[in-house]
Amino acid sequence: MKFSSLGEREIIDKIWEIVGKKENYDDCVYLDRGNYYQLITTDFIGEGTHFIEDWNAKKIGRFFAAINLSDIAAMGGKPEIFMASMFFPKSMDLEFLEEFIKGMLEILNEFKVPYRGGDLKESGIIGFSGIAIGNVEKNRMMLRNSVNKGEGVYVTGELGKQAAGYFLWKNGIGEGSNYILDVYPRIREGREISKVARACMDLSDGLASAVYFMKKDNYGLNIDFDSLPIHKLAYEVSEDYGIPLEYLTTGFGGEYELVYTSSRKILGKEIGVVDDKIGIWKNGKRIEGEGYAHFSKALDKVGR
Amino acid sequence: MKFSSLGEREIIDKIWEIVGKKENYDDCVYLDRGNYYQLITTDFIGEGTHFIEDWNAKKIGRFFAAINLSDIAAMGGKPEIFMASMFFPKSMDLEFLEEFIKGMLEILNEFKVPYRGGDLKESGIIGFSGIAIGNVEKNRMMLRNSVNKGEGVYVTGELGKQAAGYFLWKNGIGEGSNYILDVYPRIREGREISKVARACMDLSDGLASAVYFMKKDNYGLNIDFDSLPIHKLAYEVSEDYGIPLEYLTTGFGGEYELVYTSSRKILGKEIGVVDDKIGIWKNGKRIEGEGYAHFSKALDKVGR
Repeated sequence: MKFSSLGEREIIDKIWEIVGKKENYDDCVYLDRGNYYQLITTDFIGEGTHFIEDWNAKKIGRFFAAINLSDIAAMGGKPEIFMASMFFPKSMDLEFLEEFIKGMLEILNEFKVPYRGGDLKESGIIGFSGIAIGNVEKNRMMLRNSVNKGEGVYVTGELGKQAAGYFLWKNGIGEGSNYILDVYPRIREGREISKVARACMDLSDGLASAVYFMKKDNYGLNIDFDSLPIHKLAYEVSEDYGIPLEYLTTGFGGEYELVYTSSRKILGKEIGVVDDKIGIWKNGKRIEGEGYAHFSKALDKVGR
Repeated sequence: MKFSSLGEREIIDKIWEIVGKKENYDDCVYLDRGNYYQLITTDFIGEGTHFIEDWNAKKIGRFFAAINLSDIAAMGGKPEIFMASMFFPKSMDLEFLEEFIKGMLEILNEFKVPYRGGDLKESGIIGFSGIAIGNVEKNRMMLRNSVNKGEGVYVTGELGKQAAGYFLWKNGIGEGSNYILDVYPRIREGREISKVARACMDLSDGLASAVYFMKKDNYGLNIDFDSLPIHKLAYEVSEDYGIPLEYLTTGFGGEYELVYTSSRKILGKEIGVVDDKIGIWKNGKRIEGEGYAHFSKALDKVGR
């Protein structure tokens, strides 16, 4: 059986079936260290899937560091160190790597996270696999499914900019790639949120994906579409290219904003409530889709 | 400037130049945790560089886990958890992944190391980036350059089998790939060695590379070529294909055996002494080469 006929979640399930013990997946793996949890996360980006060599290498480097730190942010943690496996073909320009490293360091330095090396290998394509290690106080760790009925649902920042950038780029407007790459790790926000909230995740795969993951047995996120904070570029691209605004803002992902549930608003915008009417709703109708999943519908995300 | 005109070590130096602070590179990154060091290592293998899809997927999975754990072994540590970033094209067969996972688990289960997930992405080629996390008592950690004058030099296992396998495979004998992949993490040996020795590294890039890295300012490994434990396949391949035995056993690498220095033999075979006559010597002549380095002479290691 080829992967193309499976979704990402089915492949992951298959792996756990072989392992014989399913990990309780969250944004990070967490290890009990007595008075705190250690957080470990890894995120890969590859040429042809997440970027192409023509794109701004410095922005790719920033993006790479940001999406790795974002997983620490989603757990309410503080990043401690960063490492990276890097691989490239021998035909690659050294300048690309130099710019990439500079961008990566801009983000790491801002959060005082030391880069501690990793692995360097030859490969058929350019790829980077990051490792972020951090920690969080035991009473401040946030998990995806620690939602409670009656809590409000909140989100940082705005939705749809990265999706809009992608469709601009797909339609020949090179600048679009800069919007795809323009993400920021919500470390400070995550620390604030974790003082009160217990359930959080980052929007790597979109708000519909958060609805899928942030649920208990029979209740979860009930989101009002009309309350979403939407980036102006998403409106423009939706109109110019006829792409549903719902898809750009809930189905595509790549925002790396934080969505959390809490008994009160800490920061961001209120977009719903935790109850048994799970889903994203517009005019009484549930919006379809469960977010971006590799190997299936959104395969051709960045060309090739 | 293209990477093809640079060696791996020059590229790594370039990265640290940008970072502005060079990591004291060893087999693992180590973090001070009060009464112990935490060890973190990452190792990537990619299709076309380290294996091809035709090879035995289960053996590739064993190899992948083994080379990652090997870095923990080289520091004298105990592995705690394992994670993996995996990426593949949509055309890949699910069976390949299943066999790969089974092989990986054979090694992990033998050392009671839980697999804790990681990342799964679409990519232009098949690749796996592993993360092994472990720990070591402070008084038992082994570093590459903690050598002392007068100590003996020792190595576990035998040298040259993986290089021999590579040249068999390159010459159309498919079975050769199984020798390349047949490595074993010397965790138990590393634990024994660390009771006495303070300097150790694994032979991922060959014995000549160990000579390069395991040195103080003006002394290091003085190795007698005639005392090396050589795998019988290396003799055969050297004779059959006219490849120097010295290259197969010291210049190619891939054995993942441990080389260590110590005031007395703990296990393995004595192959030299630590003094100011650094190098691998045969009939009074120094053998050239500094081990396998990517992006330069040995680029075409596994085809493509």
